[in-house]
Amino acid sequence: MKKLLTKWHRILAPRATILVSTVNREGVSNAAPFSFVMPVSIDPPLIAFASVEARHTLKNIRATGEFVVNIPSVDLLRETWICGKSFPEGVSEIEQAGLTAVPSEKVRSPRIKECLANLECLLEAEYQAGDHWIVVGRIAAIGVREGLFDGEAFDLVTAQPLMHVSSKDFASLGEVMTYTE
Amino acid sequence: MKKLLTKWHRILAPRATILVSTVNREGVSNAAPFSFVMPVSIDPPLIAFASVEARHTLKNIRATGEFVVNIPSVDLLRETWICGKSFPEGVSEIEQAGLTAVPSEKVRSPRIKECLANLECLLEAEYQAGDHWIVVGRIAAIGVREGLFDGEAFDLVTAQPLMHVSSKDFASLGEVMTYTE
Repeated sequence: MKKLLTKWHRILAPRATILVSTVNREGVSNAAPFSFVMPVSIDPPLIAFASVEARHTLKNIRATGEFVVNIPSVDLLRETWICGKSFPEGVSEIEQAGLTAVPSEKVRSPRIKECLANLECLLEAEYQAGDHWIVVGRIAAIGVREGLFDGEAFDLVTAQPLMHVSSKDFASLGEVMTYTE
Repeated sequence: MKKLLTKWHRILAPRATILVSTVNREGVSNAAPFSFVMPVSIDPPLIAFASVEARHTLKNIRATGEFVVNIPSVDLLRETWICGKSFPEGVSEIEQAGLTAVPSEKVRSPRIKECLANLECLLEAEYQAGDHWIVVGRIAAIGVREGLFDGEAFDLVTAQPLMHVSSKDFASLGEVMTYTE
């Protein structure tokens, strides 16, 4: 039973993958991938992700009160993985991965230009939950790649978001099916 | 901007879909689909989902302190949708959908037999977050369909989990890709 529970989270997969970009107090940018993520409130717009204590992402969010949720497509699998590697604090994973940091509208944390969408967030709350922290962000500004989102429908088939399975395994979108009576 | 934000959660998709089964004080079972869900802690095993105040699921969890997270496969799209319809309190969505409630090991809420996996949970915490509540459950027992999970790897390709896109749109798993240097 203990062994079964150790990797239990792999049962809830694939999961949406995000790159969270932040800056430290000195303004040096950081980005790291997370797949423990969910929307939590439509209005006000709140998103939550879970992070272990040791991540620079969490340290930066606590220092600045803000972050950006960037959504990568499947063609950014390699870049997403590189952002997850351990670099010394002060080294930008965004540069190391060959991605482009561009200024955000409402926060100092940069948007990652190559991503499908960028959700600029202000830290709303954080809750300790076992070996992770639940970080809740209030979305202050949204950028979406031209043509993907009309405010109602998000064009997933064109977007081809990257999903995480476990470790180095990722997944792509399959078929989109509509329920009919 | 306001209009863009109204459906912002559709940008973070597709999302893992779960059926949360509960019982009310009288022991009548209930099940409803949710896709605002994420693992939050590996050890102890904690899972979180977000629910609006009005759902019977939330009312039942508050009354009993427990629930079961059931993970449907793509072939349960119709049954999952039916569980999301409005039935009077006391009517079991599990029966209405033609699914089978079977006894759990650690909680009174039933497992849904046809699902890929069943995570029996004890209510750990709940946090209000905008128009939803974040419900955190501690996993007390896990059941997984024979052959899908060896304690390390979960066989997603065989499992074919159902994912939610928006409204009546759902998605299946595409390709599983492994990062290589």
